[in-house]
Amino acid sequence: MNTFGQLFRVTTFGESHGPAIGCVIDGCPPGIAIAPEEFAHDLSRRATGKTRHTSARHEADEIEILSGVYESVTTGTPIALLIRNTDQRSKDYANIAQQFRPGHADYTYWQKYGIRDPRGGGRSSARETTMRVAAAVIAKKWLAERGVHVRGHLAQIGEVIPAGHDWSVVEDNPFFWPHAAQVPELEAYMDALRKSGDSVGAKVVVEADGVPPGWGEPIYGKLDGELAAAMMSINAVKGVEIGDGFASVAQKGSEHRDAMSPNGFASNHAGGILGGISSGQIVRVAVAFKPTSSLRLPVDSVDVDGNAIEVVTTGRHDPCVGIRATPICEAMLALVLIDQALRHRAQCGDVGPVHPRI
Amino acid sequence: MNTFGQLFRVTTFGESHGPAIGCVIDGCPPGIAIAPEEFAHDLSRRATGKTRHTSARHEADEIEILSGVYESVTTGTPIALLIRNTDQRSKDYANIAQQFRPGHADYTYWQKYGIRDPRGGGRSSARETTMRVAAAVIAKKWLAERGVHVRGHLAQIGEVIPAGHDWSVVEDNPFFWPHAAQVPELEAYMDALRKSGDSVGAKVVVEADGVPPGWGEPIYGKLDGELAAAMMSINAVKGVEIGDGFASVAQKGSEHRDAMSPNGFASNHAGGILGGISSGQIVRVAVAFKPTSSLRLPVDSVDVDGNAIEVVTTGRHDPCVGIRATPICEAMLALVLIDQALRHRAQCGDVGPVHPRI
Amino acid sequence: MNTFGQLFRVTTFGESHGPAIGCVIDGCPPGIAIAPEEFAHDLSRRATGKTRHTSARHEADEIEILSGVYESVTTGTPIALLIRNTDQRSKDYANIAQQFRPGHADYTYWQKYGIRDPRGGGRSSARETTMRVAAAVIAKKWLAERGVHVRGHLAQIGEVIPAGHDWSVVEDNPFFWPHAAQVPELEAYMDALRKSGDSVGAKVVVEADGVPPGWGEPIYGKLDGELAAAMMSINAVKGVEIGDGFASVAQKGSEHRDAMSPNGFASNHAGGILGGISSGQIVRVAVAFKPTSSLRLPVDSVDVDGNAIEVVTTGRHDPCVGIRATPICEAMLALVLIDQALRHRAQCGDVGPVHPRI
Amino acid sequence: MNTFGQLFRVTTFGESHGPAIGCVIDGCPPGIAIAPEEFAHDLSRRATGKTRHTSARHEADEIEILSGVYESVTTGTPIALLIRNTDQRSKDYANIAQQFRPGHADYTYWQKYGIRDPRGGGRSSARETTMRVAAAVIAKKWLAERGVHVRGHLAQIGEVIPAGHDWSVVEDNPFFWPHAAQVPELEAYMDALRKSGDSVGAKVVVEADGVPPGWGEPIYGKLDGELAAAMMSINAVKGVEIGDGFASVAQKGSEHRDAMSPNGFASNHAGGILGGISSGQIVRVAVAFKPTSSLRLPVDSVDVDGNAIEVVTTGRHDPCVGIRATPICEAMLALVLIDQALRHRAQCGDVGPVHPRI
Repeated sequence: MNTFGQLFRVTTFGESHGPAIGCVIDGCPPGIAIAPEEFAHDLSRRATGKTRHTSARHEADEIEILSGVYESVTTGTPIALLIRNTDQRSKDYANIAQQFRPGHADYTYWQKYGIRDPRGGGRSSARETTMRVAAAVIAKKWLAERGVHVRGHLAQIGEVIPAGHDWSVVEDNPFFWPHAAQVPELEAYMDALRKSGDSVGAKVVVEADGVPPGWGEPIYGKLDGELAAAMMSINAVKGVEIGDGFASVAQKGSEHRDAMSPNGFASNHAGGILGGISSGQIVRVAVAFKPTSSLRLPVDSVDVDGNAIEVVTTGRHDPCVGIRATPICEAMLALVLIDQALRHRAQCGDVGPVHPRI
Repeated sequence: MNTFGQLFRVTTFGESHGPAIGCVIDGCPPGIAIAPEEFAHDLSRRATGKTRHTSARHEADEIEILSGVYESVTTGTPIALLIRNTDQRSKDYANIAQQFRPGHADYTYWQKYGIRDPRGGGRSSARETTMRVAAAVIAKKWLAERGVHVRGHLAQIGEVIPAGHDWSVVEDNPFFWPHAAQVPELEAYMDALRKSGDSVGAKVVVEADGVPPGWGEPIYGKLDGELAAAMMSINAVKGVEIGDGFASVAQKGSEHRDAMSPNGFASNHAGGILGGISSGQIVRVAVAFKPTSSLRLPVDSVDVDGNAIEVVTTGRHDPCVGIRATPICEAMLALVLIDQALRHRAQCGDVGPVHPRI
Repeated sequence: MNTFGQLFRVTTFGESHGPAIGCVIDGCPPGIAIAPEEFAHDLSRRATGKTRHTSARHEADEIEILSGVYESVTTGTPIALLIRNTDQRSKDYANIAQQFRPGHADYTYWQKYGIRDPRGGGRSSARETTMRVAAAVIAKKWLAERGVHVRGHLAQIGEVIPAGHDWSVVEDNPFFWPHAAQVPELEAYMDALRKSGDSVGAKVVVEADGVPPGWGEPIYGKLDGELAAAMMSINAVKGVEIGDGFASVAQKGSEHRDAMSPNGFASNHAGGILGGISSGQIVRVAVAFKPTSSLRLPVDSVDVDGNAIEVVTTGRHDPCVGIRATPICEAMLALVLIDQALRHRAQCGDVGPVHPRI
Repeated sequence: MNTFGQLFRVTTFGESHGPAIGCVIDGCPPGIAIAPEEFAHDLSRRATGKTRHTSARHEADEIEILSGVYESVTTGTPIALLIRNTDQRSKDYANIAQQFRPGHADYTYWQKYGIRDPRGGGRSSARETTMRVAAAVIAKKWLAERGVHVRGHLAQIGEVIPAGHDWSVVEDNPFFWPHAAQVPELEAYMDALRKSGDSVGAKVVVEADGVPPGWGEPIYGKLDGELAAAMMSINAVKGVEIGDGFASVAQKGSEHRDAMSPNGFASNHAGGILGGISSGQIVRVAVAFKPTSSLRLPVDSVDVDGNAIEVVTTGRHDPCVGIRATPICEAMLALVLIDQALRHRAQCGDVGPVHPRI
């Protein structure tokens, strides 16, 4: 199950410290103009090694297009993308091979497969998400041609929440933070955290504008159901909300339901989805990231022989994995949307314009 | 996409006020003893019409087994289950056919398909979940034979949260509430709510005990990813959490990670899942239900001709849909688990006992 | 795996002598007008009990539409169809429960599942194909609206091959035979065969006219690949050919390849498919049916205790199962085509008219 | 649809004359020992350029394992295999870009996608089958550990059929021919054919020994159904037979059915499959290959502007594509078997030893 999507299918492969990571995109519509250099922007947004607030690992992340694109246009055949790993310090992980790191997938991979590639977390590393971002570059382009735009920001780090909301500043700070005045505070917060050897969680919000009503397949292929699966499949995610999410629990029905008029919806508590189908409003998803478990601070654990040990993780890790997660969440939102768009066209391509559209 | 699961596949069909609802269970292991009367218990737990706190609709919910079971044992061929609808008052919904109810799927089905069955919400009605509960009866039985048990309780109604936690009382009150002393308070709360014509949200927690380490398929078939999709596919769900969920956002890594020892894990912030694979701990999921939008209180909307109207919903509806959702969430947990168990056996059936198991 | 199709998905259920057979059609486009009486024609074409040349079992085959159709129009939600079994003489099969019939699935079901429903072959009976024909009625209607028409005829019974080819007589004789003058000969042939207690094989040819170029998904979802699977999934089928089929083995390339001109193709050795994609020519498939193994003539076998026995089958069986197979092969052709059409629309709906179309 | 298999899933990518071809194998059981040099044998068997009877194109076909194997053992994570293309003479195909070659996929790809990579047939080239053979090396190894062995031979070239059958000589001649004495005759036949500029069809037979009873999923995942799809997905295949295949049409039931005794089956007309499930006998499949259409002999066609033209193909092509197809058919047989084996284990892993096994 390393394939995501029903019709626009992305199959990823590769280990954190293996020779390469890559993906195959199958079912991509033909005729999309795409050049190798178009991947750089989003890959750079999720890359490590750019600021002191993320892991020091530096990967060139140079994409090679192996198939499916002819003269810079997609042909409808499978698109294979490849990135060679260049900065693997596997010796950083030498003793990890004999130890299970609490909060990591080491123990569960061991139990499931009876074998694991311990180098840098192997397959369970967040390095895999590079290829989701790459695949989504193509998806975003197709969506943009139809007026659908995806974007995201960080909505919480630890206890800190944005004191204001300005989309225009999100891309100008290393935290994807929507309030510029707080950035120095966050810098200081992260510096202190890094020094303490600890890590912290974060919340990401992503949204899609321009989604027409009708995308989403009830009952088990609901748009929100697939978004939940998509986000929860990202490393370190522990929660997903659509629209008001858990706040809905304490709401009254008269408060939650979004009134309608010929001019549109009066509010968007639903997050743009009703009955699993997009309503034409902005689709909004919030995602909770746990703090990374790779810390310099020691913790009790066991080794592969079952002995009690103390684990200290000294590799290069993000003190807040949520920071770089914004483009990853955007990617998953884009991948879900293009897949649902194609599925909707398949089944309902005969349905003409439906009135009234509010 | 009315099929759930990869190997243990449940396909449901039927509209709320059509002649029948039903499901086909494909890929069920042969040799499971199952009799028609074994479905009654869980169906009764999710049924309406039993207390004044749920919808007054009364459905007999008598299951007919049409195939796949011979002499009360599953044969490995598809199991078809059928329930005839008996209490459809479609006239309650006569004017609904021309109106869109805010907060409902009316408008989005209309936009997607260009046609809809308006009777009782048609396919988008929660009546569909009856068949999930029915299918899960078989799943629960197979799981129980392997020591895996699923259970759930309500964890919040509106602003009210449990003041204590006692599993033994959950099945003894109409709210699946884990603290008996609060039940009168909840009765009064719901009575007042019903009189006001409004509704309220709720939170359900379900958990599975006895899940062995190793279930779950990274990367896009992670156990938590599929649980998120499963829960989000239930009507009115707006959020899903695994383990500490959104609370993880404000946690430090040293606090969140669950220390390990030869005697097991020291805590369970992870909710029993690491890297998408079960760890052997209790699998715990929390689910947020929005308040139902079918209210006697009027709300602005539009009709199918695009005119501004005011909608009042007078049919029989639950003032808190989350109350009856506990067995539905249990069902989805069970369906995810049996499917992952079969998938794990397929790929990793060669893997012998893996040491150490803590 | 009782589901056929990727987007237009048909899930069948039911045993030959259980209470009912049925299917769920998921992913059906909305807006197709369909009434219960429209199923009768094709169901009658495949039904037993109409002439002395097929099994004497008489089933009413009355279709009940349980869901997915509102006011005689498909709504896009799953369509459930149900047929109650009425003429089950399970006592005919009493001793079969302890015996394995050579050439039947008795032994293999027993080995696979460790249990089987022996009544009338249970799930392995050709009665299951009734629902394929029913589902295809809807598929044929959608296809016909797009100018695609499916038809078939018998092309061989035993050693007898048609001495001429006239589509207009195919539906006027019980053998779907394309040459009227041979019908008396076939009647006599079948009468003699029935008296002898033996059975014989047959070949069916089906074709689709009006298929536009472009349907079919390379590499593993090729149109011919899926047709092969579809036909081979029919009971008693042992071979499938596209176009010239096995005759291609002895052909030269200069003979086989179909020359092209602005006016079209000069021949159709390919059977309307090139590279797994329809070419715009007639799609033609030939299917080989083995002789049924249920004979009055005794044969060596074993019983469930492993003892050597002699089996005589006395139930009601077709002396040539291929005769009634024509509408079944048509059904599978229609189901493959609608599914591929929807998949093509999903991926390539952006592709405008492609020139030149010859 | 560039993915084959349900649980052992092989996704291939790459064009004939693009930078590389490759595949991702997902769902592979962990713990299989595999080294890069183990791929060489089967890749060499299907390679071009070894004798004068196949295409002169010479590809090194050096496999690079990019992921999923750690210290020469499969880990259960996706295995990516890559082969760089080295001998692309795209100029050979310069004028092909403007022409449609009769009997090729040029026209249908053009109609489907509105764009095509014309270099060497692009995605529709048989070069893609290299990766099927590579993936099947792993499948064959897993199967062999369970006593299942796959092998094949050529059973007809043009009008020539084997005059004898000796498995031991099949690998000793360039035709996979089972009768050594005929090899000189075939050499002369092929030499004459090559000189004439024409091509010819062929028939391949593959079989699997040691398949236990019980593999195969009725109804739409039958073992024979999936074999038919698998074989038909190979380039140039026009027909598939299981067991007696089309010969069954002229057989009597008393002749076709395989009698059973405590000592086993008396014959194998069924080809080892009954009701879509393996019977424990040898599984036998015959496959018809059409003659290649790439000939020096001119043929009428059209160009991309719709003009009538005459096409002459001057690239390097096989005069009989069926010759090298034996290892490809073996590969598809192995891929179907491992996938069905895993699916059987998933559903029926609880079923203990089933008696009697004959």
